[in-house]
Amino acid sequence: MFAHTKRLQYTVRVTESNPGLANLLLEQFGGPQGELAAATRYFTQYLAEDDPGRRDMLIDIATEELSHLEIIGTIVAMLNKGAKGRIAEGVDSEADMYRSISGAGNDSHVTQLLYGGGPALTNSGGVPWTSAYVDTIGDPTADLRSNIAAEARAKIIYERLINATDDPGVKEALGFLMTREIAHQQSFEKALYSLQPNFPPGKLPGMAEFANVYFDMSQGETPTRGPWNKEPTFEYRQAETAVDGGSGNGEVTLAADEAACVQQAAERLRSDPDSDPQTGAMLGAGGDAAANTSAARQRGGKGGTATLDDGEPRSGGA
Amino acid sequence: MFAHTKRLQYTVRVTESNPGLANLLLEQFGGPQGELAAATRYFTQYLAEDDPGRRDMLIDIATEELSHLEIIGTIVAMLNKGAKGRIAEGVDSEADMYRSISGAGNDSHVTQLLYGGGPALTNSGGVPWTSAYVDTIGDPTADLRSNIAAEARAKIIYERLINATDDPGVKEALGFLMTREIAHQQSFEKALYSLQPNFPPGKLPGMAEFANVYFDMSQGETPTRGPWNKEPTFEYRQAETAVDGGSGNGEVTLAADEAACVQQAAERLRSDPDSDPQTGAMLGAGGDAAANTSAARQRGGKGGTATLDDGEPRSGGA
Amino acid sequence: MFAHTKRLQYTVRVTESNPGLANLLLEQFGGPQGELAAATRYFTQYLAEDDPGRRDMLIDIATEELSHLEIIGTIVAMLNKGAKGRIAEGVDSEADMYRSISGAGNDSHVTQLLYGGGPALTNSGGVPWTSAYVDTIGDPTADLRSNIAAEARAKIIYERLINATDDPGVKEALGFLMTREIAHQQSFEKALYSLQPNFPPGKLPGMAEFANVYFDMSQGETPTRGPWNKEPTFEYRQAETAVDGGSGNGEVTLAADEAACVQQAAERLRSDPDSDPQTGAMLGAGGDAAANTSAARQRGGKGGTATLDDGEPRSGGA
Amino acid sequence: MFAHTKRLQYTVRVTESNPGLANLLLEQFGGPQGELAAATRYFTQYLAEDDPGRRDMLIDIATEELSHLEIIGTIVAMLNKGAKGRIAEGVDSEADMYRSISGAGNDSHVTQLLYGGGPALTNSGGVPWTSAYVDTIGDPTADLRSNIAAEARAKIIYERLINATDDPGVKEALGFLMTREIAHQQSFEKALYSLQPNFPPGKLPGMAEFANVYFDMSQGETPTRGPWNKEPTFEYRQAETAVDGGSGNGEVTLAADEAACVQQAAERLRSDPDSDPQTGAMLGAGGDAAANTSAARQRGGKGGTATLDDGEPRSGGA
Amino acid sequence: MFAHTKRLQYTVRVTESNPGLANLLLEQFGGPQGELAAATRYFTQYLAEDDPGRRDMLIDIATEELSHLEIIGTIVAMLNKGAKGRIAEGVDSEADMYRSISGAGNDSHVTQLLYGGGPALTNSGGVPWTSAYVDTIGDPTADLRSNIAAEARAKIIYERLINATDDPGVKEALGFLMTREIAHQQSFEKALYSLQPNFPPGKLPGMAEFANVYFDMSQGETPTRGPWNKEPTFEYRQAETAVDGGSGNGEVTLAADEAACVQQAAERLRSDPDSDPQTGAMLGAGGDAAANTSAARQRGGKGGTATLDDGEPRSGGA
Amino acid sequence: MFAHTKRLQYTVRVTESNPGLANLLLEQFGGPQGELAAATRYFTQYLAEDDPGRRDMLIDIATEELSHLEIIGTIVAMLNKGAKGRIAEGVDSEADMYRSISGAGNDSHVTQLLYGGGPALTNSGGVPWTSAYVDTIGDPTADLRSNIAAEARAKIIYERLINATDDPGVKEALGFLMTREIAHQQSFEKALYSLQPNFPPGKLPGMAEFANVYFDMSQGETPTRGPWNKEPTFEYRQAETAVDGGSGNGEVTLAADEAACVQQAAERLRSDPDSDPQTGAMLGAGGDAAANTSAARQRGGKGGTATLDDGEPRSGGA
Repeated sequence: MFAHTKRLQYTVRVTESNPGLANLLLEQFGGPQGELAAATRYFTQYLAEDDPGRRDMLIDIATEELSHLEIIGTIVAMLNKGAKGRIAEGVDSEADMYRSISGAGNDSHVTQLLYGGGPALTNSGGVPWTSAYVDTIGDPTADLRSNIAAEARAKIIYERLINATDDPGVKEALGFLMTREIAHQQSFEKALYSLQPNFPPGKLPGMAEFANVYFDMSQGETPTRGPWNKEPTFEYRQAETAVDGGSGNGEVTLAADEAACVQQAAERLRSDPDSDPQTGAMLGAGGDAAANTSAARQRGGKGGTATLDDGEPRSGGA
Repeated sequence: MFAHTKRLQYTVRVTESNPGLANLLLEQFGGPQGELAAATRYFTQYLAEDDPGRRDMLIDIATEELSHLEIIGTIVAMLNKGAKGRIAEGVDSEADMYRSISGAGNDSHVTQLLYGGGPALTNSGGVPWTSAYVDTIGDPTADLRSNIAAEARAKIIYERLINATDDPGVKEALGFLMTREIAHQQSFEKALYSLQPNFPPGKLPGMAEFANVYFDMSQGETPTRGPWNKEPTFEYRQAETAVDGGSGNGEVTLAADEAACVQQAAERLRSDPDSDPQTGAMLGAGGDAAANTSAARQRGGKGGTATLDDGEPRSGGA
Repeated sequence: MFAHTKRLQYTVRVTESNPGLANLLLEQFGGPQGELAAATRYFTQYLAEDDPGRRDMLIDIATEELSHLEIIGTIVAMLNKGAKGRIAEGVDSEADMYRSISGAGNDSHVTQLLYGGGPALTNSGGVPWTSAYVDTIGDPTADLRSNIAAEARAKIIYERLINATDDPGVKEALGFLMTREIAHQQSFEKALYSLQPNFPPGKLPGMAEFANVYFDMSQGETPTRGPWNKEPTFEYRQAETAVDGGSGNGEVTLAADEAACVQQAAERLRSDPDSDPQTGAMLGAGGDAAANTSAARQRGGKGGTATLDDGEPRSGGA
Repeated sequence: MFAHTKRLQYTVRVTESNPGLANLLLEQFGGPQGELAAATRYFTQYLAEDDPGRRDMLIDIATEELSHLEIIGTIVAMLNKGAKGRIAEGVDSEADMYRSISGAGNDSHVTQLLYGGGPALTNSGGVPWTSAYVDTIGDPTADLRSNIAAEARAKIIYERLINATDDPGVKEALGFLMTREIAHQQSFEKALYSLQPNFPPGKLPGMAEFANVYFDMSQGETPTRGPWNKEPTFEYRQAETAVDGGSGNGEVTLAADEAACVQQAAERLRSDPDSDPQTGAMLGAGGDAAANTSAARQRGGKGGTATLDDGEPRSGGA
Repeated sequence: MFAHTKRLQYTVRVTESNPGLANLLLEQFGGPQGELAAATRYFTQYLAEDDPGRRDMLIDIATEELSHLEIIGTIVAMLNKGAKGRIAEGVDSEADMYRSISGAGNDSHVTQLLYGGGPALTNSGGVPWTSAYVDTIGDPTADLRSNIAAEARAKIIYERLINATDDPGVKEALGFLMTREIAHQQSFEKALYSLQPNFPPGKLPGMAEFANVYFDMSQGETPTRGPWNKEPTFEYRQAETAVDGGSGNGEVTLAADEAACVQQAAERLRSDPDSDPQTGAMLGAGGDAAANTSAARQRGGKGGTATLDDGEPRSGGA
Repeated sequence: MFAHTKRLQYTVRVTESNPGLANLLLEQFGGPQGELAAATRYFTQYLAEDDPGRRDMLIDIATEELSHLEIIGTIVAMLNKGAKGRIAEGVDSEADMYRSISGAGNDSHVTQLLYGGGPALTNSGGVPWTSAYVDTIGDPTADLRSNIAAEARAKIIYERLINATDDPGVKEALGFLMTREIAHQQSFEKALYSLQPNFPPGKLPGMAEFANVYFDMSQGETPTRGPWNKEPTFEYRQAETAVDGGSGNGEVTLAADEAACVQQAAERLRSDPDSDPQTGAMLGAGGDAAANTSAARQRGGKGGTATLDDGEPRSGGA
């Protein structure tokens, strides 16, 4: 069960109204790397976790992320508080209101018109939050790696926001939030590496002959190689088709009635390679194209495919 | 530039038609942990990458993942080939068709009715693929960790699919795909750790006083502690509000006209704590509730909130 | 700041594993009327709320809804616990696993394959939760009505789930959750009606001549009328175009250069009403249709539009 | 069956081209509170409604909302008509075109580049309309409340748009649309309250002991209380865990083989609380961190977690 | 299997950094008409295609579209390269960074903050790519038409982008991409029309009496008619209900117990047309409205629905 | 303005309740190829269309598609009417209700639990409708092709549904709807081809040297060629990089300070190709792997990458 204390984990001191900045900060409120994604990622893992240590850790961090969602949401609310009042009361002239809504260049018009200046669970572009952002799959060796990566991403987004903000109170609170991602990453790392072995994830081993191969899928220039595709970890091989030694095709055995249907469909829907049909494009290519089977080929003529560099845009009347 | 060879990297041998299994495999075709997500994750990183070694690695692996998308898509196509023929030709009786479409319990009805038996970029539940699954943010210390985690997740999903399939050809091809996730994870690990230092991600350091603190956000029972919240890495602290020593509140300085608007809105929109208004719910609570200000409180009477265990569902006519 | 106690607000006693039922219950975990939607709806309102009473109420109820999210998530986790173990360990035969994943007819295959038996923030059909479900707009007279409606909807969904469950522990916990929606609705009602006046919402009055009109948009049969379109509240009027007395058209004054562009585009892109062009459909209609401008009209002939009841599906070879 | 008259319900007189304003108005065309959401909400309810009076009302209002969709779409089209012509004909210089597309700060670039200046079913931020906005659940006591709330929200959004527009013709048409939301809300209210009893929604009563309880989920400061949590409607209680008197835990009875799997998974995937493993973060923390188990703790040293206030961003080369 | 060559199909020469333009170009990277949509449309068709000629064509064009995705992505990366460096290093002052992120009016703030200046699979408004854009349904006579239409749309979007760009290298590369859409459209046209007959799509013929009817659904003004609704192709008829000669109603035969339930629900949930209930809106309408059943009707009085033109916004205190 | 007549364009006669079939039919109610997509596609085009003939046609067909949405929605409502009554009244035993909700294998559980048996704007898999399905871009030569393709797709989906239904009344109504798609396709074809020229779409011509080239992107086997890549329309060329004769690279001129940032970031974030770092995977690979830099390479040993075919799944305890 959750409880709530009506004071924040970190004090939010905002110098002045700034709906534009508020909008950028939505990235960490309702954006893919934001605090709701973090809180729900760890909370859903907590619910299905049996390991007592990880279970306690997951709910601690989930609860802290909820408290961070509250901090970032409060910053957004403070930056928007003035705008919210103006919108509610409608006291500006229409032109002033239009300018203040449209001027910022950062989607704050959505925040103001649609959400009335309140913090909305969208990213800074107004895209609604979706649990498609949450990559929990129910295996701790995968989930802990996902958590580590998620903390790393969140740390970077906070860094970018800090670099774009000169309000000292906002900067400080964002600094706290950024720092906590560093701490959380370390917790998840410890939890992962105290689960041994954790690589490869899961129980099924890979096929030995392919688990340490690096396939060079590129052609042409010599690649820059490194430990990611070199001995001793990797065998470096040119990609080839059918590495299993088979046909390299997709094959299926069909029942007789299925095969008959497939054959019937194939015949009914065959594109005849030996025809040269008149097409809709030819009917619409203008000039005398419609009368020819290949008028579109007559480049430079009256057909529809004159050159980009001929200076004259095609006029509809010609 | 890409080129294509009309043979697969690994041969696909499917024993017999099985649209239900085909549908489950969509998880790795158009699902969040599937091959399109992998290919686009690495491809988008490649495009903006300047480091020559990582750049070459990213496009190699992206290209291989595209080739894996082709393998998994081919398995799906083979498993569905018979069903696709039947749907196209409509030769079954209506009842047979209905049964074959509706029977499987795995959303193959969407695949068949909407996609005609072709592989669709959805997960096994028919949810369209979205780039919200792609967590690239343009910093290699974060992106490589995201790649590591993504490979770990994909490995697990393949393992689950292998465990649910007894078609030996499908099993073998899935085994190859699973194995390659193991190899790719190792490449991304090598690339991450040959970038030093890589922790904490980014350039801004955290606040020293909070970077190695673990906040206990829980109340009640004694937690199971471990290296994720113990010395020497962590200082273990009870959570407290306003760890900065401030008020713990959100604060903003408003311009005078803003403050006036906010005040005016507050007054206009105040919920009077000293009133006890009649409400819509009371108007609708039945019996003589509408006439009382507090009829809903009369539990067990004729009000709308009788007990769950009183045996008698409320009838509308009474 | 939030805190967490490692005991639920209501005990969850599940009789036996049932992944199918678990999946149905996701409706109230990650579905549109579920507890995450409730918690985030009230939490976002809290953040921007200035009214002290409403603010306290909103965070209380938001916190309780989070605690309910934990309850419903715990039920899901308990119902899936056995399946999660089997998936993780892969001990079943492949055929058994396939059957257990595909048999239920309720999308539990997504839950198991993709989420490993953990509670996922999707609805019962596997659709990811989206903040598009959260209808907060930052005005209390609207938001409180949205809250009232949301509680009413959630109550109904719980009722449907209770009616589909015969596990007594699940039934009881769902009954508690359902009951709390009734209580919450009453709180929001009181908060709304203690804000006076609250109708019409907002500050701008409507146009007096249209605010109490009911337009009959229907033609033909005599409607069943009621207080929703009768005196004394409503004036009942037949719909008519241009109720303002104007032209009923869209009109705009264009600058001269704009008008010239619009005119040029109109000429370039005119569909000639006096032509009877050959079309792509005619090229593809089979028989001698391509040679006629109107073969498709020759129903019953060789054209492409023979009757549904002629018994003979069109064969591609004919 | 629907029919259409080629004149609007209300005349649209737009003074001059204004793609920026057009874009803001999309909020009520393809936004969550807009006319498509309204029309489809009532139309879907109509289709399944058996009550003759509500059925007639629902289709009347759905039809009027469709007609309002046409009005708001026409305003958008008129405001964009000039821009549409320019885009189609491409007569501006590239620099002019870029400026006109990029300058407005209101996402009109999406409207112009992607939709060619036509009204698109997105909100003002370019987010595609989704039926996730439609909260119909098929029970009239819930749906009518949803309709009431939806009308209240739409009224507010129109008010905000009116306040941001100084084009008198746009203002007037928006005023009409706003007014109609007031009228529709009243119809839905009458329909709800002429269905008695309508509270609590549905048939199942709540648990009497919890239906009128208000749980105080907050800790710390004294809350502002009001009729929403006071007598006579409510009993005010401090939140407590396990209000049912049970353990407050999630419990499930597993079959023996399930329990064995769960146990096996738990052992295999245990994070050892007594270890202090080296982690990936330690490998990447720079300096001599990789050689220590706890170097990250050495704040102020060469580790990765120096203070935010030390002035010197960490340089990669150091 | 795919392979990759580390040179583009067309050289990308960008004159100077321009994150704003980069953002507009995302329309063809991750937008609905962009190259990922094209590549995946043809690739998914390829996988399920049996016709050897179409199959070869589909994979050729899919592979070329992937190569175009690489070109447009490279343009975006080049235009953003400078911004990406600045964001990564954080060397600008905060105010400069804020200006550069917020100023452009084209959502480049999302690209920069969230994606770090890398190409993201979103459209120019930041909306994530979704496979809902891919309209493949597994029938070649439909899919080829979808492909033709998709190429036509992509051609137009490129044209608009070319018209908004004055960087000659960008313009030239976009010109190449646009040109290839013209070529691809022609290929799909040839493939469609060499499949005969291809109209109507599928096997089932239509009902002869309705396949060439044009229903006039409009009332009022005389329409402009053309070949799309004239002889010889069409019979022009006024729309009428129940063209089948039946009742025009929805009818279903219910089992007795179903009918009983439906009847019971209808009675329980009836809105009484003969009542005039007090409503929630009336409780909230202010003045003495709450005491009257019809106060809202008293326009111009103290009720909630005063005129828009009465000059005085309703004040909450009155 | 729209008006509505309370009789359908085509009578719906449903033989008996069938929620499973109802669910499949949602494909044409709220699915991507369904009637809402059709109606909104043409309606949005209508709003911005200036050509009088096309404008009249677009609104006629949009209005008819709305009327078809009503027909398909009515079929769904009739098929669900019995189930809706049962859910509302909750008269079944819980086990019966669970079976009826979960048994069908076609997502009817979503329809029943979430939507109460009413028609919902989702596809047959429960995925919410999105305007991402609507491909209108505001150019008639593209939009008319999109309309043609959309009608072809809708025709095919109806055909599949007809083949899966043996209820004669449902079959007949679906036959009518399918037939109307054939008629509409012909109207859009006529409208397209009476706009001359219509190919290539738009005004800008392509580059003559690439407009009729077919690039062979494939390697290996000889392709099956046809009119889609043969003379006289096409010049068939092997794909090559840098067809413009340039470097084939992405190039940009950076300002000096930008270049410095880019260089600084490159150095800071370089992955050292000459290192062979210990990695996180190595720390987690078990056995003595953590002590070696390359233990993972030791296949068959104690490392994490044993063979798939070694019979023994890796046990965590070993």
